[in-house]
Amino acid sequence: MTQTYGEEQAQHMITNNASDRSLTPSEVVSLCLSASAIAIVGASDDGTKASGRTQRYLRKYGFTGDIFPVNPNRDTVQGLPAYGSVDELPRVPDLAVIVLPAAAVEAAVRDCGAAGIKFAVVFASGYAEVGDEGAAQQDRLAATAAAAGVRLLGPNSVGAVFASNALTAAFMTGLDQDRFALADHQIAFVSQSGAMGGFILNMAQSAGLGIGRFFSTGNEADLGLPELIEGLVLEGSTRCVLAYVEGVRDGNALERALAAARLAKVPVGLMKVGRSERGAAAAASHTGALAGSDEVLDGVLARFGAQRADDVEHLLDIGAVFAPGKRASGKRVSIVTLSGGAGVLMTDAAEDYGLEVPAWEGEWRDRMAGILPPFASVMNPIDTTGAIAADPSLLTRALQVCVEHPETDVAVILLGNLEASEDVLCAEIIDVAERTEKPVVVAWVGGSGRPQRVLGAAGIPTFPDPVRAMRAVAALVDWSEAEARHEPPAPERVRLSPEMLDRLDRAHAAGKRILDESESKELLSLCGMPTTREAVARSAEEAVSAAERLGFPVVLKLLSDAVEHKSDIGGVRLGLGSPQDVTAAASEVLAIAESLQLEDPAVVVQESASGSTELILGMSTDPSFGPVTVVGMGGIFAEIFSDARTRPAPVTESEAEQMLESLKGAPLLKGARGRAHADIGELAKLIARFSELSVALAGRVASIDVNPLLIDDSGSPVALDAVVTLRAELDAGELA
Amino acid sequence: MTQTYGEEQAQHMITNNASDRSLTPSEVVSLCLSASAIAIVGASDDGTKASGRTQRYLRKYGFTGDIFPVNPNRDTVQGLPAYGSVDELPRVPDLAVIVLPAAAVEAAVRDCGAAGIKFAVVFASGYAEVGDEGAAQQDRLAATAAAAGVRLLGPNSVGAVFASNALTAAFMTGLDQDRFALADHQIAFVSQSGAMGGFILNMAQSAGLGIGRFFSTGNEADLGLPELIEGLVLEGSTRCVLAYVEGVRDGNALERALAAARLAKVPVGLMKVGRSERGAAAAASHTGALAGSDEVLDGVLARFGAQRADDVEHLLDIGAVFAPGKRASGKRVSIVTLSGGAGVLMTDAAEDYGLEVPAWEGEWRDRMAGILPPFASVMNPIDTTGAIAADPSLLTRALQVCVEHPETDVAVILLGNLEASEDVLCAEIIDVAERTEKPVVVAWVGGSGRPQRVLGAAGIPTFPDPVRAMRAVAALVDWSEAEARHEPPAPERVRLSPEMLDRLDRAHAAGKRILDESESKELLSLCGMPTTREAVARSAEEAVSAAERLGFPVVLKLLSDAVEHKSDIGGVRLGLGSPQDVTAAASEVLAIAESLQLEDPAVVVQESASGSTELILGMSTDPSFGPVTVVGMGGIFAEIFSDARTRPAPVTESEAEQMLESLKGAPLLKGARGRAHADIGELAKLIARFSELSVALAGRVASIDVNPLLIDDSGSPVALDAVVTLRAELDAGELA
Repeated sequence: MTQTYGEEQAQHMITNNASDRSLTPSEVVSLCLSASAIAIVGASDDGTKASGRTQRYLRKYGFTGDIFPVNPNRDTVQGLPAYGSVDELPRVPDLAVIVLPAAAVEAAVRDCGAAGIKFAVVFASGYAEVGDEGAAQQDRLAATAAAAGVRLLGPNSVGAVFASNALTAAFMTGLDQDRFALADHQIAFVSQSGAMGGFILNMAQSAGLGIGRFFSTGNEADLGLPELIEGLVLEGSTRCVLAYVEGVRDGNALERALAAARLAKVPVGLMKVGRSERGAAAAASHTGALAGSDEVLDGVLARFGAQRADDVEHLLDIGAVFAPGKRASGKRVSIVTLSGGAGVLMTDAAEDYGLEVPAWEGEWRDRMAGILPPFASVMNPIDTTGAIAADPSLLTRALQVCVEHPETDVAVILLGNLEASEDVLCAEIIDVAERTEKPVVVAWVGGSGRPQRVLGAAGIPTFPDPVRAMRAVAALVDWSEAEARHEPPAPERVRLSPEMLDRLDRAHAAGKRILDESESKELLSLCGMPTTREAVARSAEEAVSAAERLGFPVVLKLLSDAVEHKSDIGGVRLGLGSPQDVTAAASEVLAIAESLQLEDPAVVVQESASGSTELILGMSTDPSFGPVTVVGMGGIFAEIFSDARTRPAPVTESEAEQMLESLKGAPLLKGARGRAHADIGELAKLIARFSELSVALAGRVASIDVNPLLIDDSGSPVALDAVVTLRAELDAGELA
Repeated sequence: MTQTYGEEQAQHMITNNASDRSLTPSEVVSLCLSASAIAIVGASDDGTKASGRTQRYLRKYGFTGDIFPVNPNRDTVQGLPAYGSVDELPRVPDLAVIVLPAAAVEAAVRDCGAAGIKFAVVFASGYAEVGDEGAAQQDRLAATAAAAGVRLLGPNSVGAVFASNALTAAFMTGLDQDRFALADHQIAFVSQSGAMGGFILNMAQSAGLGIGRFFSTGNEADLGLPELIEGLVLEGSTRCVLAYVEGVRDGNALERALAAARLAKVPVGLMKVGRSERGAAAAASHTGALAGSDEVLDGVLARFGAQRADDVEHLLDIGAVFAPGKRASGKRVSIVTLSGGAGVLMTDAAEDYGLEVPAWEGEWRDRMAGILPPFASVMNPIDTTGAIAADPSLLTRALQVCVEHPETDVAVILLGNLEASEDVLCAEIIDVAERTEKPVVVAWVGGSGRPQRVLGAAGIPTFPDPVRAMRAVAALVDWSEAEARHEPPAPERVRLSPEMLDRLDRAHAAGKRILDESESKELLSLCGMPTTREAVARSAEEAVSAAERLGFPVVLKLLSDAVEHKSDIGGVRLGLGSPQDVTAAASEVLAIAESLQLEDPAVVVQESASGSTELILGMSTDPSFGPVTVVGMGGIFAEIFSDARTRPAPVTESEAEQMLESLKGAPLLKGARGRAHADIGELAKLIARFSELSVALAGRVASIDVNPLLIDDSGSPVALDAVVTLRAELDAGELA
């Protein structure tokens, strides 16, 4: 991927918006879905070469539209008449695949534009991925395409594949295999890795999962992963979008895409690599992309209900579970198996993934008992016993009761082997599943493998491993909840007073890196942040009289806009219970200030606050997502468990509440071990307002740390310390 | 499974040991591996019936030995001559499969014994799994078998399968399928669930993983899962044992089996269901077995290096990674891929599983660069680029450098698709792998699926998902470490003095449930447990003079062998800084004692200890494993995170150290956040001695809680409180 947009391209974006000649991403998707003519620029007669494969694959998979090989050196290419250039074609094709080497691509794109071709796929490598010169060439290519009104996929893309019209605008050798007819279950897949994209597409199709819309984004000179996700969602016919992500360059674009997906009720499943320290290093050397923080990405996915895949099979399982388009109205699972042991396994898995397996009672238990043989279990998990092998209708009847039970949100069936009766069992399951709105999910262990295809094709997600099945159900339930969530109105914008802005600008102009504690807290008062009562003192006498006004015991700290970690240099004194204590502490701390040659030696004297739960609240600036809000447990939780949640700012109150509730230490906020019970709603409101303030400050402020935000003995939050760090460079664009 | 062994069986075990007529479990395994004659008692002419399938499967898979159908009502069965009874057979078969209904089984077993048959498989159900009457019938069956010198698999077993001689002593319909020829990669599988066992066996064989030794244990009237694991290990030709576990009835037997496996260097992979609360409930209703604590099982597995599988595929992956018999000498992984993105993915996965991906430097980097094309990455992960499709020898050469690199403990290759060159690539990989002792593991995503079989058959574990591949590598590394671990000598046995035993017996005889804090600490002093200095007082005056001796501030607590949770009733007073404070506290606590009508109202006065890290150390009695040692972080860690480790007692010092090191809160013990740095070695020694004492006490004591075990400001442990709970029933067998 390229790292920077060149000036020419920036220029183009304005031009383009003005003239409106280029396609939107959703128009690109529509065009691919309906394409009936394709040009292959640089087409080779040798179908095994990279430059010959596209044409061979189009024929192999049965593309019924026009194929126009463009090759000035030949009369025919692979049996079709060849054209000397794109302007000689009998009609304007929907898209061009440019299979030329990098040096010839720019001219070809220009020609495409002149010929009225609106979308081109570029395979050539040798651009940004090989260094600065390549990056410059890539910028020129992007600018040329923009000027020509051509949207680009690539360069360094392995192509695009659309199954419904057999549009294989790609050169991946995975298409050589004969084990699948490309199927389209209206599942799309966008991959930043060409190799992994091709492998995964192949793996899915081989398993009968119809990923029917595929884009390899390559270097993303023009169309990037977020735009393509958004385009797929907005086009309207895609049921689920999967993505393989190496780096999120433009976090806000990804947010827009995921927001669009949630609004359009199109679930998104995403696998992101480069999470670990060594993995991120490998990713940086591979793509040069800024990784962005993985924690923020988790927060963004949670915000929009997008599902994060842990491995490749998980990604495909997410596709499978969403393909039928059904949603779960809750997280209660009823399990039907033919073995008690299998039921235990499924129940474990359900609990592991946060699902519920309510024990059946009364009437429903009796109904099930009326169907099944004596030693069956009718409590959920339902054990039909192996009798279903002899009488498959038992399964239908049990399953029917299952989906009728009002406490069933999802019905999960575990079967295995049973090759002799698999057809009739599949038919029975399909019969019940088709007559209910509730999701029916199957784990079929062992056996011929056919049930996975037969049931999958009938819209019943089927998995070879019971635990994987339950993991997929959990994704379905989580997304269903997100889709149904009532979102509160957008957060308010905080307006900063001209005086405050002026003060920040002056602090910056004076070369300050941080604001001192008093100034920081004053800034935070704009979002209603409660703080301890305090006073600034410049002598031991002033400190004592401040302490007497505040009431003993007090805390005394060095006040400085030069020292960030006061306690590291002995600048924090707690529990000063008498004037003598305060005098001694003030003298010592002021002496430290003098020894550091601080300009205006001062201390701040604060009332002591008492409480046992500490939070950390912060704002920082993510390279991909901009200002983010971080909330976590303080003290040992921060250090040992990194127990924090991060989301792009601003966060709504309900988001802040979700963040708090998902902390491992959340029980401590709710009064565990005799602690004060915090008002989570009030706390969430404070966090939301803090995050709004963060956004308003983002042009001038790089980070804010409120640490600790103490939950005091009455359960109220109070900021004991705070530090605002200014940006090294003010961001003019954000100084509104 | 049955829950209780009947008296008759107990009687038998003595008889049997005396007469030595029965086979050992390893002899049963040997017999199955070499069986050349099998009787089918109750054989049906209808090969589709449960009673007809075994014979049909033996023919289908090519069992070349003698098959003797026993059926008094027919001349022939499925084309073979039928025999009227087992004593009419032309030779004594190695084993009998009894396919008769429950009512006829006992007599058949007796006949087998009389005919000299030493091992029988019983399919019939209707025993312990259907209630008390069935359980009694099962006890009778076990006793009959024992008396007859016949070892039993079952009843309610789906059978045993041995691939090398095509011994399909089973009736699972999974054997009907034609997608595999039974292969034996010297991997064994023991399953307590018949259904899941059959499904998993089928799944493995279909995927080309040769689980060639399979036992379904059924109700375990005689041979149970632990004995069969031990038998497989001791027989000597099995490379890896997998197990599907529903309930561990005899924890000590499982420990013996796992100890034998470790000694014999045979890795064990185990999937245990019934972990979750609802899952355990379902398991109890399914098998009636005592689940035993899942935490103890984790401790047992960690003790012996056995690998726990999270799902079915994981279980098979463990089998695959151990099948070649190679071991890793460390956890450093070198990764070779054909795509930078794939390398990032593999690196993430490696870090997730605690493996290392060291970046290559200097010489080795240069060697790799000398082989690969310009834009390859040579730092680890190694990216060969797609050039290997055109020149597969590039892969061999890169892989060769990889395995030669001294910092490579395991070489992991990620490939995908490449159908056109898969044969040659597989051959290249096999070539390198055969010439190195180091494990070579492959992830092959997408493609034809053939590489998984071809490489698997050549002893190169190959997985369809990169993350699964790395998870399997982690299991290999973990086991290799356990196998190489130097175990210290067995722990000492603590001997209790006759006086101490007498005191415990008198406490029990007096109907006491717990020992008071002073008595509890006195008992703990036997293992050198450090405690605070303290004194018992029966009046406020005595309390004050005790406090003056100990030094203020002191702690004052109710002393009682009737009240377990003193603090719940206001019986604990901390930080008493003056004689006045002590007088007031003593009066109040003694008043509480009187209001509770305690026999001998008293308090204990203790010096105050100061420290910031709390541990919990305990002993409890697990229904499966007996006395266990629990060590965990105290305070909020205990409550919020259940941060504790459990192992059967006694634990060695090195085990205690492993338990401490694996706590989430371990950094706190090592001085995180300015806490006192505990001496882990000394702490481990104390825990080991405590666990030895636990074993000595186990006949009389049900549990011991040392809570908290404070790490004081000097880093030394000190028990601030302790309570010993006596057993409700003394265990005569353990009162040695």
